[in-house]
Amino acid sequence: MSSSVPPFLLDIDGTLLDSVYEHVMSWREALEHSDIHLPHWKIHRRIGMSGKLFLPTLLRELGEKADAKEIEALEKIRSDLFMKKIPKVEVLPGANDFLKFLQRVGARWAIATTGDKKQVEQLLKKLDVPEDVPVVTGDDVAIAKPAPDCFVAAAQRLRVPKSEAVIVGDSPWDLLAAQRMKALGVGLLSGGYSEAELQRAGAYWVYEDTADLLAHVEELGIQTE
Amino acid sequence: MSSSVPPFLLDIDGTLLDSVYEHVMSWREALEHSDIHLPHWKIHRRIGMSGKLFLPTLLRELGEKADAKEIEALEKIRSDLFMKKIPKVEVLPGANDFLKFLQRVGARWAIATTGDKKQVEQLLKKLDVPEDVPVVTGDDVAIAKPAPDCFVAAAQRLRVPKSEAVIVGDSPWDLLAAQRMKALGVGLLSGGYSEAELQRAGAYWVYEDTADLLAHVEELGIQTE
Repeated sequence: MSSSVPPFLLDIDGTLLDSVYEHVMSWREALEHSDIHLPHWKIHRRIGMSGKLFLPTLLRELGEKADAKEIEALEKIRSDLFMKKIPKVEVLPGANDFLKFLQRVGARWAIATTGDKKQVEQLLKKLDVPEDVPVVTGDDVAIAKPAPDCFVAAAQRLRVPKSEAVIVGDSPWDLLAAQRMKALGVGLLSGGYSEAELQRAGAYWVYEDTADLLAHVEELGIQTE
Repeated sequence: MSSSVPPFLLDIDGTLLDSVYEHVMSWREALEHSDIHLPHWKIHRRIGMSGKLFLPTLLRELGEKADAKEIEALEKIRSDLFMKKIPKVEVLPGANDFLKFLQRVGARWAIATTGDKKQVEQLLKKLDVPEDVPVVTGDDVAIAKPAPDCFVAAAQRLRVPKSEAVIVGDSPWDLLAAQRMKALGVGLLSGGYSEAELQRAGAYWVYEDTADLLAHVEELGIQTE
């Protein structure tokens, strides 16, 4: 294990897998069931937050009150719709190469996502994640992203101080969590947010995707040879 | 007709209708037919350009050469896929109110889009566009957006100098066209681009959608009472 390699905490959706747009479509369809009409872009900008946190905001914008039971029902419909879309979800360029790189250099790394366990299990089948790599899901913490809890739990599972971690994510919600943990946030464009939005949210560097991050990994102070 | 109201040239997709994400999905599915795998975000950032202009760029990034026949075939598949999604496309908040406002204040206005005529006819059924309002489609010009041709043609149909027009669009491609025409560009977030990207592309103002634009229309120097 090289001490020059910081611990990495990785998001899944939009970071390792190209699943953000499928999440947008799933939420949109689920909301239609309740006759709630939200434009795609507003949903897109909230993907990466847990439904429990993003629905109250969006409903408030529509002048509707969030009802805990309704939110739970919507989450269930959305989850079922998304599960059906998983077979079509593709691995983002460079994701598995980046995971292999982390293994090769002996990095301590973990997965931390807002998705529920059932969904995450399906998604992970597309990725080369060794069995001993900690995976923290939305089911493991009381409050999901943008609260830092799942990243904090992942750091604990790795037995590393949370502020030493490098958090890699595609959304401002990942970067807000990084900010609160005093960790270094790295943003990726692969979820559809813009460079300016990620920088504004505190990304120290922004790359296109993990392929681009891997091609510039020395910029994180990691010696590769 | 009030001389204080500038002529308006309006984009459709992402500006009046919530159709950008359906375009992304249609392109993605069409490309899969040719075993071309592009992440959603890269396609999203090119929606609003014509396929003839955006496919060569994207294929070049993949190290593939663009073949005119292949591009034409992909366009056809994409167009068929998108046509099937049109029934589910919704009107963006405020779009028809904004069109009614333009009528009420006696504005000269036109529609200018890269979409083909057949597709545009279907989309326009969702909007209150009077028969005498000029509609310029991708079929009417030699080069579609981001070339300014369709906006220039729309200004000509209105018999107004192109530089006096206000162009309202959701993508940097609309704003590039505005820039080249020396027209005023107004950006909308409703297509999923960020405020910073639209400003960088030359948007003088950025609003959430046409509802937000209408709520602030005096900021364009238009007297409403």
